[in-house]
Amino acid sequence: MTLTEMIEFGRKILAAQPFSALLGTELTRLEKGHVELRLALRDDHRQQHGFAHGGVVAYLADNALTYAGGSALGDAVTLEMKINYVRPAVGDTLIARADVVSAGKTQAVCRCGVFAVKDGEEKLCAAAQGTITPVKGA
Amino acid sequence: MTLTEMIEFGRKILAAQPFSALLGTELTRLEKGHVELRLALRDDHRQQHGFAHGGVVAYLADNALTYAGGSALGDAVTLEMKINYVRPAVGDTLIARADVVSAGKTQAVCRCGVFAVKDGEEKLCAAAQGTITPVKGA
Amino acid sequence: MTLTEMIEFGRKILAAQPFSALLGTELTRLEKGHVELRLALRDDHRQQHGFAHGGVVAYLADNALTYAGGSALGDAVTLEMKINYVRPAVGDTLIARADVVSAGKTQAVCRCGVFAVKDGEEKLCAAAQGTITPVKGA
Amino acid sequence: MTLTEMIEFGRKILAAQPFSALLGTELTRLEKGHVELRLALRDDHRQQHGFAHGGVVAYLADNALTYAGGSALGDAVTLEMKINYVRPAVGDTLIARADVVSAGKTQAVCRCGVFAVKDGEEKLCAAAQGTITPVKGA
Repeated sequence: MTLTEMIEFGRKILAAQPFSALLGTELTRLEKGHVELRLALRDDHRQQHGFAHGGVVAYLADNALTYAGGSALGDAVTLEMKINYVRPAVGDTLIARADVVSAGKTQAVCRCGVFAVKDGEEKLCAAAQGTITPVKGA
Repeated sequence: MTLTEMIEFGRKILAAQPFSALLGTELTRLEKGHVELRLALRDDHRQQHGFAHGGVVAYLADNALTYAGGSALGDAVTLEMKINYVRPAVGDTLIARADVVSAGKTQAVCRCGVFAVKDGEEKLCAAAQGTITPVKGA
Repeated sequence: MTLTEMIEFGRKILAAQPFSALLGTELTRLEKGHVELRLALRDDHRQQHGFAHGGVVAYLADNALTYAGGSALGDAVTLEMKINYVRPAVGDTLIARADVVSAGKTQAVCRCGVFAVKDGEEKLCAAAQGTITPVKGA
Repeated sequence: MTLTEMIEFGRKILAAQPFSALLGTELTRLEKGHVELRLALRDDHRQQHGFAHGGVVAYLADNALTYAGGSALGDAVTLEMKINYVRPAVGDTLIARADVVSAGKTQAVCRCGVFAVKDGEEKLCAAAQGTITPVKGA
């Protein structure tokens, strides 16, 4: 696949996820070993203090990890992941960037940073690491 | 606080989270060291294969861990968590039950199981563990 | 295998691990889905403040998780694990108890508590959760 | 502190850890936000298949994470960590390199890669991520 075909394929998968459509997630970059997802923050993404809800941040990290792993493995699912919240997610957009750390036949280990964008400035708000496995091996 | 006051207080917090309102989460049990959240699954909670999206499961686990930790610490946030997906979340309802494993002044370590209910039968679909910290100490 | 055969088999594996022999780990219980390891603490297990080193605690948790998973899967390795340190490991003995939370063909998710024993009293010092996979699937 | 003073200080701490002395760990680099530990593998570091024991790898990652966090926070402990084993640790030396991803007053989130060196070639065998907290805040 060319990069253009790859991102179009990735966008079809995202569009086929009703939950991602509900939230409004966009796939803005996808290449072998690297992915970027973006989410324009709305009021209904937030928790009681006005920050993006930790569950939204975890969703975005989980999805980015799966895409990153899938870029190396093909059809894939997240087996497990760990996320550290390092700063309240304040701003108008979340960006999740994930990379493959190691990929074999049966698993890919990926890392992800989730950034909150406010006034054009990105700040890391969460760091995640997870294991992605091919669907047949799951 | 009595148990009734405690769960009413917990429900106010949940109602104040626009993201939890968007998803439809209910707080069905809250006592010191234990919490239960429920989510009636709708189509827009799902991913492309019809299962509850991993991000929904992670959101529910994250929220249950925070409530469990908060039941021991007071106002609290999830510092970090880890989640293992053990089975596709198939069914009509998700139930997250979280317990405090250890609580001190500066942190509570909590565990959570997320169960999918289908035809009245509960099956574990995810297991999580995380660190909750008081808001002032975060 | 009977329980007696099972624990004898488990002890042979432990004896075949030079690192476990160096540390002095004992397998004190092994049945399907549950395991207990014990380590009599020596001065050379400690860090600069006199507590058992976090690496010793992590080693014991890792090993207990692998045994628990192996009791369900057969020959197995730890794919990944997460450990929370909840209290300094003070005392004369460490006990790690691990249980299978969920087991399928390709993975077992297990949890472990590590307890430090001082003056006959056990206190939880760490809680771990991890993924164990069969050796052929690793 | 100059870099030379910093690494000398770090080596004193390592020398004061009887467990690190037992294993033979060396601190080969320490600067603000980055650390490198090395361990010459001996037979008694191994498990039954001749690889470095997962517990040795976890110990080294845990220690490197603590040093990295400590380089930003001062006296510090590992609150929790997660480790993915990506390849058997085969070779004569382990190298753990850890970096600070985010540091505030109450926590540092750090990542670590553990590499096994065989015939002069480094291969990633584990990836870890953890939370380090100042000793007073722990």
